[in-house]
Amino acid sequence: MKGKAVIYTQDKFVQNYAKTAHGLIRGSERYEVVAVIDRAHAGQEAGTLLDGEARAIPIFGDLQAWLETGSEAKYFIIGIANTGGILDRAWFPTIKAAIHAGMDIVCGMHESMAEIPEIADLARARGVKLIDVRRPKRREDLHFWTGEIREVTCPIVPVLGTDCAVGKRTTAKMLVEAFRARGKKAEMIYTGQTGWMQGWNYGFMFDATLNDFVSGELEHAIVTCFRQEKPDIIFVEGQAALRNPSGPCGSEFLVSGGATGVILVHAPARTFHKGWDKMNKQIASVASEITLIEAYDVPVQGMALNTMGMESEEAKAFQASYRAQFGLPVVLPVEEGVEDLLEIWMG
Amino acid sequence: MKGKAVIYTQDKFVQNYAKTAHGLIRGSERYEVVAVIDRAHAGQEAGTLLDGEARAIPIFGDLQAWLETGSEAKYFIIGIANTGGILDRAWFPTIKAAIHAGMDIVCGMHESMAEIPEIADLARARGVKLIDVRRPKRREDLHFWTGEIREVTCPIVPVLGTDCAVGKRTTAKMLVEAFRARGKKAEMIYTGQTGWMQGWNYGFMFDATLNDFVSGELEHAIVTCFRQEKPDIIFVEGQAALRNPSGPCGSEFLVSGGATGVILVHAPARTFHKGWDKMNKQIASVASEITLIEAYDVPVQGMALNTMGMESEEAKAFQASYRAQFGLPVVLPVEEGVEDLLEIWMG
Repeated sequence: MKGKAVIYTQDKFVQNYAKTAHGLIRGSERYEVVAVIDRAHAGQEAGTLLDGEARAIPIFGDLQAWLETGSEAKYFIIGIANTGGILDRAWFPTIKAAIHAGMDIVCGMHESMAEIPEIADLARARGVKLIDVRRPKRREDLHFWTGEIREVTCPIVPVLGTDCAVGKRTTAKMLVEAFRARGKKAEMIYTGQTGWMQGWNYGFMFDATLNDFVSGELEHAIVTCFRQEKPDIIFVEGQAALRNPSGPCGSEFLVSGGATGVILVHAPARTFHKGWDKMNKQIASVASEITLIEAYDVPVQGMALNTMGMESEEAKAFQASYRAQFGLPVVLPVEEGVEDLLEIWMG
Repeated sequence: MKGKAVIYTQDKFVQNYAKTAHGLIRGSERYEVVAVIDRAHAGQEAGTLLDGEARAIPIFGDLQAWLETGSEAKYFIIGIANTGGILDRAWFPTIKAAIHAGMDIVCGMHESMAEIPEIADLARARGVKLIDVRRPKRREDLHFWTGEIREVTCPIVPVLGTDCAVGKRTTAKMLVEAFRARGKKAEMIYTGQTGWMQGWNYGFMFDATLNDFVSGELEHAIVTCFRQEKPDIIFVEGQAALRNPSGPCGSEFLVSGGATGVILVHAPARTFHKGWDKMNKQIASVASEITLIEAYDVPVQGMALNTMGMESEEAKAFQASYRAQFGLPVVLPVEEGVEDLLEIWMG
């Protein structure tokens, strides 16, 4: 039974920073999203605004306006992320109002709400829970890499990207759904807070794990999934990018995670790494990204394009061009789905 | 003023697992090593056994034998590491004896001594300190990457390796010393517990840092060092290897750490990744390692060879062969020093 939830995105619903909100609107087994609170997008419908598909999720300008409708929800979810994972103090009045209204607060930032006295004290007084999704595990609950990954006999496919917030998790989710629609057993290993909030059963918080245990936690999640579900294929949600300046990620999937091949997600209209445009940190070319991935001895098997900032014709031109240049299947997930990638594993 | 210290290596002094002991015997600004406790090597001299250079550090078979000489030391240092960082219960009797003798215990494992009641209670009763070097920093003390690394105008040179425990820190230390011997200002950024124990002033514990903050902690250490010391060059102690199966490391140095070039350390006689030989995890070729590093857009500028398991002639043959194959300076640090690498930066 899903818990009803309101998602808060301040005024950033249409930005990449609201990717937690976007992921939950695309679907969650854990929460039923009943409303979004966003000052800049009041009166619109969240699904339509996200990708053109209506989902009957109204956007309110502030929490009070939603409360006045007489609706109720158990959870208030912080649906935006910041670089560095610090809670923005500008969010506090709304978070406190949600606590006053009796809602449990769900947050995936590094900063723990439980360690902020003005939030923690209020929550205690009001009797609501503070759910810090990204709180690091205790040392004794962490797994070190063992090599058991070799037991897994199905394909293991990390969905990597050339940048952050480019659609890795969404592409992986769509691939799982496409396999399931054909009667196959597919699973996704989550590696971030939104994946957990969506209700995936196997995974860990990549960036909130002590570095020495990242490979072991990854292996443990994949091996446990394989033993319990006996899936036909396992997709793994990638994180950041191999050359993301503020924290490169990806080699763990390729070296320790038993990857049999990679799906690469790329946003052709994006020139600079997200958040670092002022620093002139250009995203490398797709060709050089494929060279780097394959230097880790894992083949890139297909691509998915994020078409944000492009007209339909332009997106299709990039799709055709990458297909020709690399001889790989290339999909536009939001526009056309991911069906064309299935041939990789189904022959 | 250095603190006198006894180092414990169980019976593994000659193995790679004792690399913390080896590093401290090679030199520390923090501790003066007065004895080693190692059951299998009693009666020998630690420096001679390590690299043929006598340092007047006697090895005793057990702590009691050393105590009976009437010597005193403030610190008892665990000088061996385990995969996964769990304290070996076979070490406990000796650790307890050291606590009884009034020594502070220094340990660089992930497992915290303070959380082991039989150790913590005894230490409290005896009034000695438990110094858990690798204890993770608190969230509020961690730095996220900012891009300030661009301020650094001197060369930044990570010393990477094709495997764990191959001589990265020792090579970096020797490079700093060689620069200083020529009247230049050089610094090493430590990234592991042995580096901290050696007394280097700038650095962090790479593998005990939450993954999202590794790049920021690295940047913060380098930038702080640069601002305070104004060095001519900064070497960075690498960790593990880019394709180390139990936890790949290295991309952070290349992508976020402002690396201007890499020194690559390799052990030609080693076939399998340390600890994973039963799993047939072969170390990649030097050529493929250079390809991988340079796919991150940083050049490999020179090499250092670990000659363990080789006769002198064989080592020299590898040296000549790599020089010819890659057109790079290649040194045998323990046998010949690292002087031949200095030309890279001094012209």
